[in-house]
Amino acid sequence: MSDQAIILFAHGARDPEWAVPFDIIQKQLQAARPEVQVELAFQDFMTPTLEAAAARVAARGARRIVLVPLFMAQGGHLKQDLPLLAGKIREQHPQLELQVTPAIGDAPEILQAITDWVLRSAS
Amino acid sequence: MSDQAIILFAHGARDPEWAVPFDIIQKQLQAARPEVQVELAFQDFMTPTLEAAAARVAARGARRIVLVPLFMAQGGHLKQDLPLLAGKIREQHPQLELQVTPAIGDAPEILQAITDWVLRSAS
Repeated sequence: MSDQAIILFAHGARDPEWAVPFDIIQKQLQAARPEVQVELAFQDFMTPTLEAAAARVAARGARRIVLVPLFMAQGGHLKQDLPLLAGKIREQHPQLELQVTPAIGDAPEILQAITDWVLRSAS
Repeated sequence: MSDQAIILFAHGARDPEWAVPFDIIQKQLQAARPEVQVELAFQDFMTPTLEAAAARVAARGARRIVLVPLFMAQGGHLKQDLPLLAGKIREQHPQLELQVTPAIGDAPEILQAITDWVLRSAS
């Protein structure tokens, strides 16, 4: 087990089916990197919270967390809520290195993959 | 100009920056298929609505609309709201053929692209 963890942070919803694509991504990542702790965390409606997920991976020995916002777009959740949550985690776990990646909607290769998929779906 | 239109349907938000990735996808699609009408539409907070976008492309001669939900996950918007909206559009424009694609979170190739991007971001 490495000392690295990946936390995938998603919005959450009341409908349990909502989490399915995020579960699939988590499983694909875990299969590709079996030595890394890969966890899901949610803003609302679903558990664990981001704080709980960070505490869990820290308790299991993580020293470095890469936090990936699985949000398509920039809004209040990413601009206001996420920096506050990241600040709390840094206070609670000062030994942890916490890196926050861009959101999926800020990644040109993801947008291109979506464009390509729409072109195939619409032809 | 073909008689086909693509409408990209997204959630919408109060923050104007929220629409940026969807604008990029729209522009990439329009560049790839200049003969097709490619429009954005929003569930909430932003305009046009899906009904207004459908009326616009129909007025410009579209006979076939491919409606692409740019939602990561299945929840109330896709399960309840979208079928109602699609039904309304079919009533208002009986001459139109309206095809609704899966959501981006239901496309295995999009989930794989996200997984691959996380692996690169987290290494």
